[in-house]
Amino acid sequence: MASVLIREAKEGDCGNILRLIRELAEYEKLSDQVKISEEGPCVVGYGLYYFIYSTWKGRNIYLEDIYVKPEYRGHGIGSKIIKKVAEVALDKGCSQFRLSVLDWNKRAMDLYKALGAQDLTEAEGWHSFRFEGEAMRELAGK
Amino acid sequence: MASVLIREAKEGDCGNILRLIRELAEYEKLSDQVKISEEGPCVVGYGLYYFIYSTWKGRNIYLEDIYVKPEYRGHGIGSKIIKKVAEVALDKGCSQFRLSVLDWNKRAMDLYKALGAQDLTEAEGWHSFRFEGEAMRELAGK
Repeated sequence: MASVLIREAKEGDCGNILRLIRELAEYEKLSDQVKISEEGPCVVGYGLYYFIYSTWKGRNIYLEDIYVKPEYRGHGIGSKIIKKVAEVALDKGCSQFRLSVLDWNKRAMDLYKALGAQDLTEAEGWHSFRFEGEAMRELAGK
Repeated sequence: MASVLIREAKEGDCGNILRLIRELAEYEKLSDQVKISEEGPCVVGYGLYYFIYSTWKGRNIYLEDIYVKPEYRGHGIGSKIIKKVAEVALDKGCSQFRLSVLDWNKRAMDLYKALGAQDLTEAEGWHSFRFEGEAMRELAGK
């Protein structure tokens, strides 16, 4: 495989990234939660992160998505994206960065562990909860 | 108990909230991860949330912390804080809000479920991973 360039996204990448988001949703068996119709030429992977700053919890990066097209896996592209996020996190003065992964995705879990991540759900028992539209409206009395 | 006022934090609340953060860390058995020396008069609870906006994932709120002092529990203050966050989320056009909870904290898990939240770790198998300082520096080659 030719060499891989890991770079920050530009506006012109949106169509390509949207197509990957749909692929990721199919891979995570959550495609009913994603509705995207845009198409575009090929980009082989992406990482989407949020930078969060709080006065008392410091600076954090949350890696919301990471995805590499199946035919480009096994070439270390996922690791390169994570290394890029680690660089950004250190440059921004973060003490940590976080991400979430589905427990049946053993390949991803093994990769993150091999790169030095700790499974907080396994080690400390953290569970993720979500309130959605109807529950929120009932809570807010709207 | 007297009536409870749920309001957004002001700058003058910082000392009080810092004391609660330390109490929360003790409750979560993670106090070695928190170093706070400030003291202040009494505030009985707080919720800390982040508002996140992404062009393709929409608007989200992540409730980072929620805490009520032990002697004030059982009066519905936690529910009121969550209802306030639901109001803010709807006002900001969010389709959902998320939070994390430790699995031994059955009281909190039962409350969130009773209020309509879904346990994504249980239902879909999501695990939280964290990269910390040393792992980040190794990844970034720094």
